[in-house]
Amino acid sequence: MAVEGEPTRVMVAVNESTIKGYPHPSISSRGAFEWTLKKIVRSNTSGFKLLFLHVQVPDEDGFDDMDSIFASPEDFASMKHRNKIRGLHLLEYFVKHCHDIGVACEAWIKKGDPKEVICHEVNRVRPDFLVVGNRGLGPFQRVFVGTVSEFCVKHAECPVITIKRSASETPQDPVDD
Amino acid sequence: MAVEGEPTRVMVAVNESTIKGYPHPSISSRGAFEWTLKKIVRSNTSGFKLLFLHVQVPDEDGFDDMDSIFASPEDFASMKHRNKIRGLHLLEYFVKHCHDIGVACEAWIKKGDPKEVICHEVNRVRPDFLVVGNRGLGPFQRVFVGTVSEFCVKHAECPVITIKRSASETPQDPVDD
Repeated sequence: MAVEGEPTRVMVAVNESTIKGYPHPSISSRGAFEWTLKKIVRSNTSGFKLLFLHVQVPDEDGFDDMDSIFASPEDFASMKHRNKIRGLHLLEYFVKHCHDIGVACEAWIKKGDPKEVICHEVNRVRPDFLVVGNRGLGPFQRVFVGTVSEFCVKHAECPVITIKRSASETPQDPVDD
Repeated sequence: MAVEGEPTRVMVAVNESTIKGYPHPSISSRGAFEWTLKKIVRSNTSGFKLLFLHVQVPDEDGFDDMDSIFASPEDFASMKHRNKIRGLHLLEYFVKHCHDIGVACEAWIKKGDPKEVICHEVNRVRPDFLVVGNRGLGPFQRVFVGTVSEFCVKHAECPVITIKRSASETPQDPVDD
C-alpha cells in the first residue's frame, strides 16, 4: 500500500445556491465538498483528484431575466454571457479551495437536466466514484422537488456517495439550498 | 490539512459467500473491501479505521442443518457453536488483511435481518460512512432477492457507498455471491 499509483478520481457535482443572487455554491454542494476533503482526502492531498461538474439548467438560468426586455439578438447573447460568468464564479470557488490546499482538480460546465448530464459525464469521464450533495428532504417534500442524488445512485455507472445537508444548515425553507 | 485528527471510521458490511461451504467472504463484500482499500484508504493507512459488521441470518444459518438430526438440546448448542465459528472465520479474513497492511479495525457479529441490523448498528456506532457490496443484479432479478444496499442507502443515518460486483466476477448464477 506504500506505493501510490494514479490518484483516485472523485467527481463532485456542484450547483449554485437558490438563496442569494450572487453565484455561490449551494449549502449541500459545499457540504459534500467539505465532507470529501475532511473524511476521504484528509492529509493525502496527492492521492486524489477532484473533478467538479456544474450542470446549468437552461430554464432556471433564464429565471432572473423574467423582467428583462429583449429588444435585439444581442440582449440574448448578453444573458448567455451573464450565465456563463455565474457558472465560472461557482467553479472558481471550488478550484481556488483545492489549489490552496494542494489537491489536483478539474472543473467544467455542461447544460441540461442535471441528473441526466451527471450520469452522462460519469460514463464519459469514468471517475472512481461520484459525490453528490442532498438537501435531506423528507418523502413528502421530495415528491415536489425530486432529487438528483436518488437518480444518480440508481443510474450512474460508478459508486455514488450522497452527502446529506446537516440539520443545522437547513435554511428556513428546506427546499432552498 | 497536514494535521490529521481522529481517523475516518468506515463501516463495512460483510457476509459469507453463498457458493461454497467453507465460510469465506462473498464476492461482493470482498470487492467492497478491496475497493475501499485501493480507492479511499490508499497509502494513508493511519487515516482510517475499518469497522466490519457481519450480520448472521438465523434462518439461513440453519439451512445447512436441514438433514441433521436433533436428538438433544446439546445438538442445538453444537449447531449454534458451528455458526459462531463460521462467522468468526469470516471476520478473521478481513481483520487479518487489515493487520497485514497496518489499518486499524474492529469486527463484530450480530444476528437478525441484515438490512435492519446494519442501520441499527450505524445509529449505535456512528461511522463516518458505510460501504456495502452489491451483486449488481438487474431490476428483474432484484424483485426476487431484494437488496440490502438499496435499503441502507435509503435508511442508514450516514452516507452510504454501494460497490457493485464487477461483471467479470459474476458467477454462473448471478444470484450467487
